[in-house]
Amino acid sequence: MTATRRTLLATATCAFVLCASASAGEPPRADAARLESRIKALGQFGANPEGGVSRVAFSDADIAGREYIASLMRAAGLTVRVDAAGNLIGRREGTDRKLAPIVLGSHTDSVPGGGNYDGPLGVIGAIEAVELMNAKKLKTRHPIEVVSFVDEEGGTVGSRGMIGELDEGALNEKSHSGFTAREGIRRLGGNPEQLASATRKPGDIAAYLELHIEQGAILEESNLDIGVVEGIVGIRWWDVTIEGVANHAGTTPMNRRRDALLSAAELALAVNRVATEMPGRQVATVGRIQAMPGAPNVIPGKVRMSLEIRDLDSAKMQQVFDRVEAEAKRIATEGNTPIAFDELDVAIKPAPTDPRVRDLIAKAAQSLGLKHQRMPSGAGHDAQHIARIAPAGMIFVPSVGGISHSPKEYTSPEDMADGVNVLLRTTLALDSKDR
Amino acid sequence: MTATRRTLLATATCAFVLCASASAGEPPRADAARLESRIKALGQFGANPEGGVSRVAFSDADIAGREYIASLMRAAGLTVRVDAAGNLIGRREGTDRKLAPIVLGSHTDSVPGGGNYDGPLGVIGAIEAVELMNAKKLKTRHPIEVVSFVDEEGGTVGSRGMIGELDEGALNEKSHSGFTAREGIRRLGGNPEQLASATRKPGDIAAYLELHIEQGAILEESNLDIGVVEGIVGIRWWDVTIEGVANHAGTTPMNRRRDALLSAAELALAVNRVATEMPGRQVATVGRIQAMPGAPNVIPGKVRMSLEIRDLDSAKMQQVFDRVEAEAKRIATEGNTPIAFDELDVAIKPAPTDPRVRDLIAKAAQSLGLKHQRMPSGAGHDAQHIARIAPAGMIFVPSVGGISHSPKEYTSPEDMADGVNVLLRTTLALDSKDR
Repeated sequence: MTATRRTLLATATCAFVLCASASAGEPPRADAARLESRIKALGQFGANPEGGVSRVAFSDADIAGREYIASLMRAAGLTVRVDAAGNLIGRREGTDRKLAPIVLGSHTDSVPGGGNYDGPLGVIGAIEAVELMNAKKLKTRHPIEVVSFVDEEGGTVGSRGMIGELDEGALNEKSHSGFTAREGIRRLGGNPEQLASATRKPGDIAAYLELHIEQGAILEESNLDIGVVEGIVGIRWWDVTIEGVANHAGTTPMNRRRDALLSAAELALAVNRVATEMPGRQVATVGRIQAMPGAPNVIPGKVRMSLEIRDLDSAKMQQVFDRVEAEAKRIATEGNTPIAFDELDVAIKPAPTDPRVRDLIAKAAQSLGLKHQRMPSGAGHDAQHIARIAPAGMIFVPSVGGISHSPKEYTSPEDMADGVNVLLRTTLALDSKDR
Repeated sequence: MTATRRTLLATATCAFVLCASASAGEPPRADAARLESRIKALGQFGANPEGGVSRVAFSDADIAGREYIASLMRAAGLTVRVDAAGNLIGRREGTDRKLAPIVLGSHTDSVPGGGNYDGPLGVIGAIEAVELMNAKKLKTRHPIEVVSFVDEEGGTVGSRGMIGELDEGALNEKSHSGFTAREGIRRLGGNPEQLASATRKPGDIAAYLELHIEQGAILEESNLDIGVVEGIVGIRWWDVTIEGVANHAGTTPMNRRRDALLSAAELALAVNRVATEMPGRQVATVGRIQAMPGAPNVIPGKVRMSLEIRDLDSAKMQQVFDRVEAEAKRIATEGNTPIAFDELDVAIKPAPTDPRVRDLIAKAAQSLGLKHQRMPSGAGHDAQHIARIAPAGMIFVPSVGGISHSPKEYTSPEDMADGVNVLLRTTLALDSKDR
């Protein structure tokens, strides 16, 4: 949808029905051109020849990018500091000293060979929201904090630090930059020996909002403007082993084979069928497969493959697995090829967003005449950690072609502005006494 | 079937029906115990801890094993020489100087980590046949040559040398031993610069017979004693590429995926279905598979897999491929995942055995009361090359469990003796004026 069509639609909606926000006191709208120019300016730090960025956490480009963000924060009147975990925080005081801050956050580090929007939109968009409030001299009761979290792409280091879950193991892990997280946090001005000072407890954050690109194609393909994120999906991984009998591919007749790859093929199709046929938005994927011994003239005696299941609901993930396991039992019996599932110790629990925050996001989108839909986030975000200590919400805007983690990542200035407008209105609604 | 039961069956058959061979002039029977003791004696050269042998061509163990074989040849009255290709040849003259030899051959080299029967049985069995003739003072019109071919397991080097198809490339190829074939042939007493002197042309060999273990489980599972080999199957190999779209396994809904692995799984099942459902004994195998990028959290964007088709009939192999290709077209269209087949330049043409030789083998088995069946050889053998210049036949005896290229390879002494008895009777029938 173009900006022009969308504006007409909003006008039309408000012309004929009761439209709360269509008043003289309506919040200001984001400046799409300014958003895009800042996204591009940040994109200079770590720019790669393909038009994206390689601005991995703790690199010189990451440090330079954060300095640029800090300068924008200061220009927006925010008081800037770096917490012990290295998170870059800009704060605008509220009128009620007793209230905890509303935090608007995301990250500015990228994957190696990444794009310009995954992360930066949430930080630059939050600064834009503050500037809009400044321009209209809007005061909030709660303080507002804009946070650029440390090393989201390398394992959501900063948001884990903020909830007190950054242990020695994580600090000693080598990041994409070559530095350990401990070394990296120091490079950013943090103090890994004082992490406790960065920790927020339940009650320390009034609400958390994260504006982010979808990284999928659902909004674009459904011609929607805004995704109201229901939560960040949980993830479970298994190593699956299918045992057959390796044998000579020339001397073993078709009807005397116990071919592990045939059973693996049936299982891969069953995984897809189960996840597709069950109602809901769960996904299940076989991404890796290896047949052993792996020679063209030997019937595979063993196959190892991966299984990943994601959903917003732990019970649903278990249901998907139970059905896959039942299919595996049938396939194992039919092919005389035992199948074993070994779950890896990397499970991520689903992180639902706060239902009231979701409603406020949906209302804000509606007040702007934006078409929106509730949806899960299939990818991980800093919000999944902050959701454990505060009411959290996420706002998605369309990713063109659903492309992400690539220099081809793109979201239009108009879509970014829509996202900021929803972010601002939701922030004001969260701040309001009346909600 | 035990030897006792089999003898009874033969006796019974001959007691009540006309039985040509049940006369005073019946050829002598092989000595099962002697065969086994010689197989075990040869197995000392290159013996591995698992009870098999690692007697790869050109190794010290191979040279020592050939010296043992040469000693058996000499003890059997054969005149021993090594041809320029390194083949070890023992010759017994015939009564008619104008006739070309009947050649009985196989090999004594093994794969790394191999067994005691694949190859040795054909050489030791041929020497046994000569000794049986000697014991009964049986003269043949044709000379008899027992040949132990060079480096069968590394690419049928000796038999290719005998038909004049050992080129510079093959001579320079490194063998399992670490030596090139050229160096190895010299180590065995051959002369790679004089290969022409080893070459036999059509007419130079009256007939070729090879006794070999089946290396499959057909005979054992069907309770048969002898396989009358119809030929050595042809082999064709393809690299198959399935193109999908790599995407985030979390953010891409099930119904928006173009998963290359799902199409590959369907194709692997289709390959099996096509080869199984068509009448005949063709085999088709997917032995190798790789999904790219190959991460548990990325939908496979590309899959590469192998396809192998084997059959005795080139036209049948093409039919199998045509049907697989038709299935691939359907799968590619349904999944929106283009599939490409690249044939590798390693095709081996089917090598049918001589129909008259087959009939003589079948008759010999019948005269001995042995249950036999015509069958293809799914594995390659020296016979496939010699078949191009001479009427060739192969005799299979059961492999316990169908196991081969393994220390667990085993054929009972009784089954070996049956094979030698068929080899001897077929040799005598080929030599006979009356056939």
